[in-house]
Amino acid sequence: MKQFTSTESVRVDLDGRSYAIDIGATLLAGLASHEALPAGTAALIVTNETVQPLYGAVLVAALARCYPAAHTVVLPDGEEHKTWQILNLIFDALLKNGCDRKTVLFALGGGVVGDMTGFAAACYMRGVPFVQVPTTLLAQVDSSVGGKTGINHPMGKNMIGAFYQPQLVVCDLSTLDTLPQRELSAGLAEVIKYGPIADMAFMEWLEGAMDALLNRDKTALAHAVRRCCEIKALVVGQDEREAGMRAILNFGHTFGHAIEAGMGYGVWLHGEGVGAGMVMAIELSHRLGLVDAAYVQRLRALVQRAGLPLHGPVLDAADNAGRYLELMRVDKKAEAGEIRFVLIEGPGRAVVRAAPDALVREVIDACCL
Amino acid sequence: MKQFTSTESVRVDLDGRSYAIDIGATLLAGLASHEALPAGTAALIVTNETVQPLYGAVLVAALARCYPAAHTVVLPDGEEHKTWQILNLIFDALLKNGCDRKTVLFALGGGVVGDMTGFAAACYMRGVPFVQVPTTLLAQVDSSVGGKTGINHPMGKNMIGAFYQPQLVVCDLSTLDTLPQRELSAGLAEVIKYGPIADMAFMEWLEGAMDALLNRDKTALAHAVRRCCEIKALVVGQDEREAGMRAILNFGHTFGHAIEAGMGYGVWLHGEGVGAGMVMAIELSHRLGLVDAAYVQRLRALVQRAGLPLHGPVLDAADNAGRYLELMRVDKKAEAGEIRFVLIEGPGRAVVRAAPDALVREVIDACCL
Repeated sequence: MKQFTSTESVRVDLDGRSYAIDIGATLLAGLASHEALPAGTAALIVTNETVQPLYGAVLVAALARCYPAAHTVVLPDGEEHKTWQILNLIFDALLKNGCDRKTVLFALGGGVVGDMTGFAAACYMRGVPFVQVPTTLLAQVDSSVGGKTGINHPMGKNMIGAFYQPQLVVCDLSTLDTLPQRELSAGLAEVIKYGPIADMAFMEWLEGAMDALLNRDKTALAHAVRRCCEIKALVVGQDEREAGMRAILNFGHTFGHAIEAGMGYGVWLHGEGVGAGMVMAIELSHRLGLVDAAYVQRLRALVQRAGLPLHGPVLDAADNAGRYLELMRVDKKAEAGEIRFVLIEGPGRAVVRAAPDALVREVIDACCL
Repeated sequence: MKQFTSTESVRVDLDGRSYAIDIGATLLAGLASHEALPAGTAALIVTNETVQPLYGAVLVAALARCYPAAHTVVLPDGEEHKTWQILNLIFDALLKNGCDRKTVLFALGGGVVGDMTGFAAACYMRGVPFVQVPTTLLAQVDSSVGGKTGINHPMGKNMIGAFYQPQLVVCDLSTLDTLPQRELSAGLAEVIKYGPIADMAFMEWLEGAMDALLNRDKTALAHAVRRCCEIKALVVGQDEREAGMRAILNFGHTFGHAIEAGMGYGVWLHGEGVGAGMVMAIELSHRLGLVDAAYVQRLRALVQRAGLPLHGPVLDAADNAGRYLELMRVDKKAEAGEIRFVLIEGPGRAVVRAAPDALVREVIDACCL
């Protein structure tokens, strides 16, 4: 296998808050010389107990060359720790180290680390700069880009947060070498979603490249990360605060968030919930007459090949559909108690709309095991 | 005494996020017909156990006429409750009531309620609209205007928060009738500060009007609230995120925050800390050769007439100045460990700058009892 060395860059256009997403191999070590690195009086690396032993030292060494001080705070790993209590560990570390308003936060890890670091950066002294250094496929193709930050509330996912953009996103593909297979599959859920909502050519490419991605071929990964970031950057550039079209990026997430909250955060990975959630959302699209059965089958095949679940879990033996509906009513897209779903109205085109409860119940009954 | 009936309006100019500050008597009851009231699926009134029995019912009745639902959450009263734990009561209430992204929050109370409600509005579902209904003088002349929201951390005041603007500020002067005298004095500290930093004509007016203000004369209160809001609106309109000049509004606050944190939040009222803090800051200005002794005496006289402390408390019997310095080093204006003070460089003109530790120690020693 030939060595992958090129670096690509995707730009997120947001007037005064535009930034670059760099994608390449072994970018971590070279970060110190990156021209877009924000100046500051100190750096605080936020990471977790899994990622710190793998990449913490490399990043500290790089940042120690460009900041007077480089501190690290290590959080517990997992969605169940995306809470106020753990968020406070970041504030404690900032204050204990005497970090001022010119401190730069670095999120070294997956989606949970990125969401929490971004939210801490948004709130500390009412806002300090931060850099995303995503080390999971899910974070590289989705959560590190676009400025959605936040934490969970026991009653709903990502209920407390901020729109707050990073100054830079550095996707080092080499960090994916250490990713557990289950996490790789979870990341592929967010890769797959970009096809049905926006780009059928990408869906076709994915059908051909799935084995290469599962084998962590760097050229295939680079293409997937770049294309996903391009689509996301385009959408976010047009609708940063989700007044409208940005919601399409939540394809599979309405059902998926219900699964995550209903099972207890961390039992299902976010990407696993999105995988089963996309199957439910495409089934609902089909039953509403928007897409044909062949397209449903095509998406299901891709989800399955990625190693993702095709069925949602039973959350309540007595009234499973009722429990899903209850959980979905606190979704951020809901309005006046009406759940709004991201559906596919034709291959490559998404729409956000409501659906009759009875039909949603049928879909849940058909899609849960 | 003649009935005060007129309503005045001050505009805060912030491009797409401009809003009005209405100042008048008995505005609460008429709020339902206010044209700038944001549309929404529900209202949540955030108030505290002291204010709720006084004005809760009036506001609920007004809002029930313009929102499908009007909920209330009652927080404990006092600066010591400006914490994560109490902030979470607001999120709990929002989620328990099924409040969606189109819910409007109303802050009914003083500075603590306003800061926490604004921060909750900034974070709930990554941002919902909110309205300030300040019921203390301090909140009406200062904290409800300008979008600084947040909570305290045990290690520092207002360390966690957001810049997040309200849609409307309604200053009902009638609510000041029920304000305890101690709180009225605390509010006068924030009134007094606008003179030295920006407007010597206002300082002269204040010297003549202090008795009327202490007697809660509505015409005098209306003038004070309007002029303070005008100055604040002008400053915030030029520097919303405190990149520079906005910091002058923090005159007296660097010392004041140290007093509040050092004594334990809630022991000294915020305005009391600012009162003693202004005396320390003007003394420091004098010792740096910026203002003459007569001006120091003039400001001290005004602080004293307002019923505010002229001296800071002793925070540490062994090394009081050292303790103040330690607390002030975590101030948000500090940079690389250097404390930056808001000083008066001439009557009506403020400057933000550092000062030698030895001189600051002298000032603290001279100003604490």
